[in-house]
Amino acid sequence: MLPSVPSLPGSVDPAWLPPEVFRPLGSRRTLIRGAGPLVDTVHAEVADACSRFGGRVARDARELGGPGDLVLELGEGGAPDGLGDEGFVLARADGVTRVGAAGQAGLLYGLFHLVRLGEAAFRGERARETHRPALGSRMLDHWDNVAVHPVMGQVERGYSGGSLFWRDGLARGSRDDLERVRWYGRLLAACGVNAVAVNNVNVHEAEAHLLTDRVGEVAAIAEALRPYGIRTHLSVSFAAPVVLGGLATADPLEGAVADWWAEATRRVYAAIPDFGGYVVKADSEGQPGPFAYGRGHADGANMLAAALAPYGGTVHWRAFVYNHRQDWRDRTTDRARAAFDHFAPLDGEFAPHVVLQVKHGPMDFQVREPVSPVIGAMPNTRLAVEIQATQEYTGQQRHVCWLGPMWSEALSFRPTGEEGPSVGELARGGGLVAVSNAGDDPFWTGHPLAQANLYAVGRLAWQPDADPGAVLDEWIELSFVPGRTADPARLREGLRAVLDGSWRTYEKYTAPLGVGFMVQPGHHYGPSVDGYEYSPWGTYHFADRDGVGVDRSRATGTGFAGQYPTPWAEVYESPETCPDELLLFFHHVPYGHVLHSGDTVIQHIYDTHFEGVAEVEEARRVWAGLADLMGAARHARVAERYEEQLRGAREWRDHINTYFFRKSGVPDARGRRIH
Amino acid sequence: MLPSVPSLPGSVDPAWLPPEVFRPLGSRRTLIRGAGPLVDTVHAEVADACSRFGGRVARDARELGGPGDLVLELGEGGAPDGLGDEGFVLARADGVTRVGAAGQAGLLYGLFHLVRLGEAAFRGERARETHRPALGSRMLDHWDNVAVHPVMGQVERGYSGGSLFWRDGLARGSRDDLERVRWYGRLLAACGVNAVAVNNVNVHEAEAHLLTDRVGEVAAIAEALRPYGIRTHLSVSFAAPVVLGGLATADPLEGAVADWWAEATRRVYAAIPDFGGYVVKADSEGQPGPFAYGRGHADGANMLAAALAPYGGTVHWRAFVYNHRQDWRDRTTDRARAAFDHFAPLDGEFAPHVVLQVKHGPMDFQVREPVSPVIGAMPNTRLAVEIQATQEYTGQQRHVCWLGPMWSEALSFRPTGEEGPSVGELARGGGLVAVSNAGDDPFWTGHPLAQANLYAVGRLAWQPDADPGAVLDEWIELSFVPGRTADPARLREGLRAVLDGSWRTYEKYTAPLGVGFMVQPGHHYGPSVDGYEYSPWGTYHFADRDGVGVDRSRATGTGFAGQYPTPWAEVYESPETCPDELLLFFHHVPYGHVLHSGDTVIQHIYDTHFEGVAEVEEARRVWAGLADLMGAARHARVAERYEEQLRGAREWRDHINTYFFRKSGVPDARGRRIH
Repeated sequence: MLPSVPSLPGSVDPAWLPPEVFRPLGSRRTLIRGAGPLVDTVHAEVADACSRFGGRVARDARELGGPGDLVLELGEGGAPDGLGDEGFVLARADGVTRVGAAGQAGLLYGLFHLVRLGEAAFRGERARETHRPALGSRMLDHWDNVAVHPVMGQVERGYSGGSLFWRDGLARGSRDDLERVRWYGRLLAACGVNAVAVNNVNVHEAEAHLLTDRVGEVAAIAEALRPYGIRTHLSVSFAAPVVLGGLATADPLEGAVADWWAEATRRVYAAIPDFGGYVVKADSEGQPGPFAYGRGHADGANMLAAALAPYGGTVHWRAFVYNHRQDWRDRTTDRARAAFDHFAPLDGEFAPHVVLQVKHGPMDFQVREPVSPVIGAMPNTRLAVEIQATQEYTGQQRHVCWLGPMWSEALSFRPTGEEGPSVGELARGGGLVAVSNAGDDPFWTGHPLAQANLYAVGRLAWQPDADPGAVLDEWIELSFVPGRTADPARLREGLRAVLDGSWRTYEKYTAPLGVGFMVQPGHHYGPSVDGYEYSPWGTYHFADRDGVGVDRSRATGTGFAGQYPTPWAEVYESPETCPDELLLFFHHVPYGHVLHSGDTVIQHIYDTHFEGVAEVEEARRVWAGLADLMGAARHARVAERYEEQLRGAREWRDHINTYFFRKSGVPDARGRRIH
Repeated sequence: MLPSVPSLPGSVDPAWLPPEVFRPLGSRRTLIRGAGPLVDTVHAEVADACSRFGGRVARDARELGGPGDLVLELGEGGAPDGLGDEGFVLARADGVTRVGAAGQAGLLYGLFHLVRLGEAAFRGERARETHRPALGSRMLDHWDNVAVHPVMGQVERGYSGGSLFWRDGLARGSRDDLERVRWYGRLLAACGVNAVAVNNVNVHEAEAHLLTDRVGEVAAIAEALRPYGIRTHLSVSFAAPVVLGGLATADPLEGAVADWWAEATRRVYAAIPDFGGYVVKADSEGQPGPFAYGRGHADGANMLAAALAPYGGTVHWRAFVYNHRQDWRDRTTDRARAAFDHFAPLDGEFAPHVVLQVKHGPMDFQVREPVSPVIGAMPNTRLAVEIQATQEYTGQQRHVCWLGPMWSEALSFRPTGEEGPSVGELARGGGLVAVSNAGDDPFWTGHPLAQANLYAVGRLAWQPDADPGAVLDEWIELSFVPGRTADPARLREGLRAVLDGSWRTYEKYTAPLGVGFMVQPGHHYGPSVDGYEYSPWGTYHFADRDGVGVDRSRATGTGFAGQYPTPWAEVYESPETCPDELLLFFHHVPYGHVLHSGDTVIQHIYDTHFEGVAEVEEARRVWAGLADLMGAARHARVAERYEEQLRGAREWRDHINTYFFRKSGVPDARGRRIH
């Protein structure tokens, strides 16, 4: 029997899979060849589409009742060598579209590729194209807690309601809950995600038990996601042998510890045969790790990899390690240096089943950071690049902030210059990991337009050098099906207008020129210029009456710029060559310093903050004009969030401008009101 | 049968009632004359003391078995007219000490007066002295929650463990719990407190029910406190008729609302015949109030007073009303003005059973504020002055901060000049109210030395013009019984050394010159100069590169100085006459402004911050030298807190100095390290 396509209550938004996008496929005759559970998923999807739109689907050509329009074929007959499990070929000739794949997952991705193509998949001729994911691992990390955390809540840094997986300490085990998880898997497959880590990297007490006595809850999620080609991973506590196993130590070089992990892992695989592996935040922000036993990160990660290797599992070991109890008086310590200082010397020491998971920037998901120097410094290590879909520092899904361009910039960066590999290429060994922005909110992501970020995670992981504008267009075509509205051109144009530049708009009205932070402590929403200035978190701007910024040069600063190879070490070393948008990340300069743009730093601060608010006002106006072109609930939710975004943008503008005016004493050259 | 004197587990500190202080009384022969429950309490206390120290007590002289040393006598024979219920007379002649009182409570206070006198009560001759409390109402407000508040916890702004009355949503009803409440009543009677409001003025959902279906919990507390002359009060929600009664409105001029309160009050008195009355925080920081119905504070308060008046109850109506959603850009609104602007025009409009409860300063319990101008502006209103024993802004019982001198300064202030009445005198109609600093901590107040503040509440309410140094000496003699130690002089001197100037020390290393706040938002512990600068709370310092402070003059500022009568309006109006310690409260001045002390403002900031830390270091050293003179647990607890105080003081020093150095650019004249 075929699996059922998951169904969604009418109250939940279908995101980029509204029924209408299946019309081209569902109105055709499709032949499916091959066998296996994911082929059954493909079959079920096509059958579901046909039931809506009048087409037919069969596993045997004779059952089609006529000539076929589409062949979806596993294995022989068209799938070339080297396609891998997830690749597919597409061609069209003689009125028949053909998708061939070597692996079942490839057929599933081929199916969703056809959905994206729409009617174009069934027109004219199409020379044979080969599609393969550039990155084998395309992962979402959920920072979901099992038990509601007293400070962080059900989902740490979650702005989309509760967790899809847990509620108030209990697994969401109802039929409706699991149906929604299945639907989530379907959404993720449609954009290319193939791995999900289900729980927070900060592993608290209740969550620790998911590894042992509560592994059944993880198995239930894995079962729901498996039909869509998604493997399930688990964040674990490095102290698990002590906390759960009653051992006296979690020393990775103790045989009893390795044995404990081997046995625990054996049991996990007994429950979840295709289990993906562990995610570990060790020796970071208070989480336990190998340092407590005088061991290094390679010792810790390799021990876990040894437990996973027999089953083909992976340990994702996070490189987010720094001193979070820094003394703000000490200007020699630089948090930006920490990941490189800790990990670059370990290149080559990690076992094959270890992936080192590196945040794309050296700090922490700020609106503007340089690319982490770690990424170019570890050629003999499997690296995953970590990005953050949940908008912790980029508006918390109350502000529109389309992150595709930011991620694309990071993935296109070439650490060793134009001749060398890009970040996207360097991530081939470990893939792309994004902190999820999804929750049980009816729009999945709180802000309906934040769905575009979730969609882009999968698409950029599949093809890191994709044009983010093209990804956005795909998302618009799928999610809004503009062809079904009164004025498709106005809808497309309006959506592009409010989304395209929204990241740069957000950058304009918040922390300037790469300086970062300046947010309210704790929740990180809204401005507080000095909020982290005298804190132990290592996030400073050093603004005084004369200037602002962090000197990270080799010559006079913390030396962070020297962690880059040529040419970037030289580019970042001098304020003369450093890109404007990173100036205050790398240099402490006077307010009168003249940027490449020709403006002084202080005038740039004033100008961008006024511009940013004006851009939000304009976007809000554009959005208001789109009301007749989409469902009322979606339009209203976004409209309501624009009110908050505008309030927030004005607060940022006035707070930042006032702060720097009070400090610098320099009046706005244009005479605008600064409080 | 006599009531039992409450007993305390050995793990709980006896504070200022260690058994030893009853030795002089307990080793004598005492005759008690009179009848009634509080006379029984007195009898029980003396009997308990005698059981420890070999004396005798009787109600009939013939039972004494010899000549008496002490007569405690109710009613006839020595109590003059006008003593009131709580006064007493004391005399000694012919070897007999005599205490006479007109009311039972007077006899109880006379007893504890003898405890304070110790052996001196039984020496030589003593001419007849009359003792009466200057203030009839001497009250503690507990900000205890019934249900643990997600942000504020079990006790709002509580730093002494949990509540004595509730735990995790349930009344503490066990025998041990109620025994501790009885002991608390005994402690309070021994310093002169006669009223306790049991729950937080922010009345959340669970707490609202104390007025109706959970009134039994209040009755149990009242029963425990009653034998020590303490009446129990309750904080209520102004919206109770809606929230609890199901009415559509809480409009104070609606007959049905008044009827609802009358009936609710009748039921409260049925459960607690000597119930003290209601405490109301209305139209303040989000609490409901009469404004919602277009009514004024007098309308609201008088309606509640009408419900209480038949039973002799009082409504304490708080004057802490201001706009807590202020726009920081708007410099014309001044929170300091709010209480006066709201309430001064209502003078004479409040019913006799209303007490208007006014914070001693116009802001919110900062380490330094002027006296609230409301206190001198409402001669036809019963005013209570509210002080804060819980150290919200004064070190949260992790720092030593003896507040007696601060309260004494406020109570001695004469709003209309030297010829006019003092604040203490102006509070005669309503009394003194202190926010309690007591909880279920083994030392009652978290920091053992903070017991002195709790003690001082009662003693300064009894006699507002008392010398705070004398109050501190009393507390030292009772709590540490220095006569029992190896070196009484060193102990007394050491305690005075660490306590005497601790308020000014705290002032030195925190927010300078009366400017206030500069604390971490939310929890209010530790420095954050801009923490409330761009907030809606109305608490700003306006520091820029040229100067700092709030212009509250009439001539150029918010006009707050004009809320004072002569001479203070003129004194505060000009930086030339304004006292140094309030300069930044009233004026925005350049960093180079020269204080009366001869120092510039900026140098004063640097100097005081270095001095403050040095003083903490010295106090810590002195404390270390007292280890042999007291119990180990008490010494260790204080020693441990000194470590945190020193860390905190250094953090304040460096944060404040660095902030102002970065802003002003003025180097320290003495060349000390500023980061």
